Amino acid sequence: MTRWKLTIEYDGTDFCGWQRQPDAPSVQQAIEEAIEKFCGEKTGLTVAGRTDTGVHARAQVAHADIARETSGDIVRDALNFHIRPHKIAILEAAAVAEDFHARFDALGRSYRYVIHNRRAPLTLDLHRMWHVARPLDIETMQRAADILIGQHDFSTFRAQNCQSKSPVKTLDRLEVTREGEIVTVHAEARSFLYHQVRNMVGTLALVGSGKWTLNDFRTAFAACDRTKGGPTAPPDGLFFWEVRYPR
Amino acid sequence: MTRWKLTIEYDGTDFCGWQRQPDAPSVQQAIEEAIEKFCGEKTGLTVAGRTDTGVHARAQVAHADIARETSGDIVRDALNFHIRPHKIAILEAAAVAEDFHARFDALGRSYRYVIHNRRAPLTLDLHRMWHVARPLDIETMQRAADILIGQHDFSTFRAQNCQSKSPVKTLDRLEVTREGEIVTVHAEARSFLYHQVRNMVGTLALVGSGKWTLNDFRTAFAACDRTKGGPTAPPDGLFFWEVRYPR
Repeated sequence: MTRWKLTIEYDGTDFCGWQRQPDAPSVQQAIEEAIEKFCGEKTGLTVAGRTDTGVHARAQVAHADIARETSGDIVRDALNFHIRPHKIAILEAAAVAEDFHARFDALGRSYRYVIHNRRAPLTLDLHRMWHVARPLDIETMQRAADILIGQHDFSTFRAQNCQSKSPVKTLDRLEVTREGEIVTVHAEARSFLYHQVRNMVGTLALVGSGKWTLNDFRTAFAACDRTKGGPTAPPDGLFFWEVRYPR
Repeated sequence: MTRWKLTIEYDGTDFCGWQRQPDAPSVQQAIEEAIEKFCGEKTGLTVAGRTDTGVHARAQVAHADIARETSGDIVRDALNFHIRPHKIAILEAAAVAEDFHARFDALGRSYRYVIHNRRAPLTLDLHRMWHVARPLDIETMQRAADILIGQHDFSTFRAQNCQSKSPVKTLDRLEVTREGEIVTVHAEARSFLYHQVRNMVGTLALVGSGKWTLNDFRTAFAACDRTKGGPTAPPDGLFFWEVRYPR
């Protein structure tokens, strides 16, 4: 039995998210079925960061145990072959120690949220960015973002059905940058609450478009109450970006 | 009557190309129908650069005459409203001189061709890049590209059904760059032959992957014979990038 660490890219548009659902196509199911087609083994995948309906991944990580003796190149190519036509790609398959755990070993996770900030609707970036027509002032957004850095109670940005034991998380990085019409929010933490990134981005957009002042933002955050926060940004612009492991 | 210059972005995946066809959805038809819905006028669009099935545009330009008195902001927003759900966006509508001509006034056109150069299949970039699995050496590609700069007979890269009077064109710029796994070929000229960019890119890829030497490339180009050139790169990676006008 070998434990395989899979690095995975996917377009979340056509999926109900990472996790298997009885009646909807999930990324997990598509890959588990590809593994079964490849080696005839039913095996469960354990993922670093579950993603929601419509959320994408640039370098998701999951692990699976496979009995068949094989190589990383063969696992990657065979899974990519069997996974078609789903928009999922195994970027890398690496044999790892049998106690490697994609979720519990993760030291940090990062997400990237991408906004196309222009008047005209989206065409080429549809489903891959959030369309915000009102001009965003990223300097003010960055000042709001800076307030969130460090260890805090993030209840204002926590979805109702979040299963995390505590609303207290440590946010290591939250950077707002612009390149032309594209505004990017990059977030890094050991772990995030459910919908935390989308709720932070939705609220930052209120500040960036001038609907909220920095003080409104500070007050909402301090309230530790989801109903005081801004709207949840749509899944389209969210990418599970990277996982950091020891070594 | 006002002549409007429209700057247009589109995802070409769902279209048979720019030009109206009797039985297939075209970009031209979608915009002309949106104009009619907006002002009740049947008007024809004249475009700077016709694009083929599956080819995208970042900043295509077309002109149309509209009798209704209105403003650029209204034309842009109304057309974008009526054009839905097609993946076409009017980025700008500008009133121009009544003798402005989107095609004949163009001093230069540029195309960008984007290759995702990696082993794994594409997900997020599907239909928007060409997937080339074999590693590409862009320095050799650039040396081949340099051979094409200037005025030449481009018959080797000219599609059979090209309607241009002469195969002689002047290529002003052909740059091959890489950012990680993404290889970009940027081409600029006053005008191009039919399929010229895709044929140049398909042939440059032969050089980049080591299947052809620079000498093979030089010989094929000098033959002035399409059958001596490399394959036509797929439309997915091609973007009509920009048009240059006087002033």
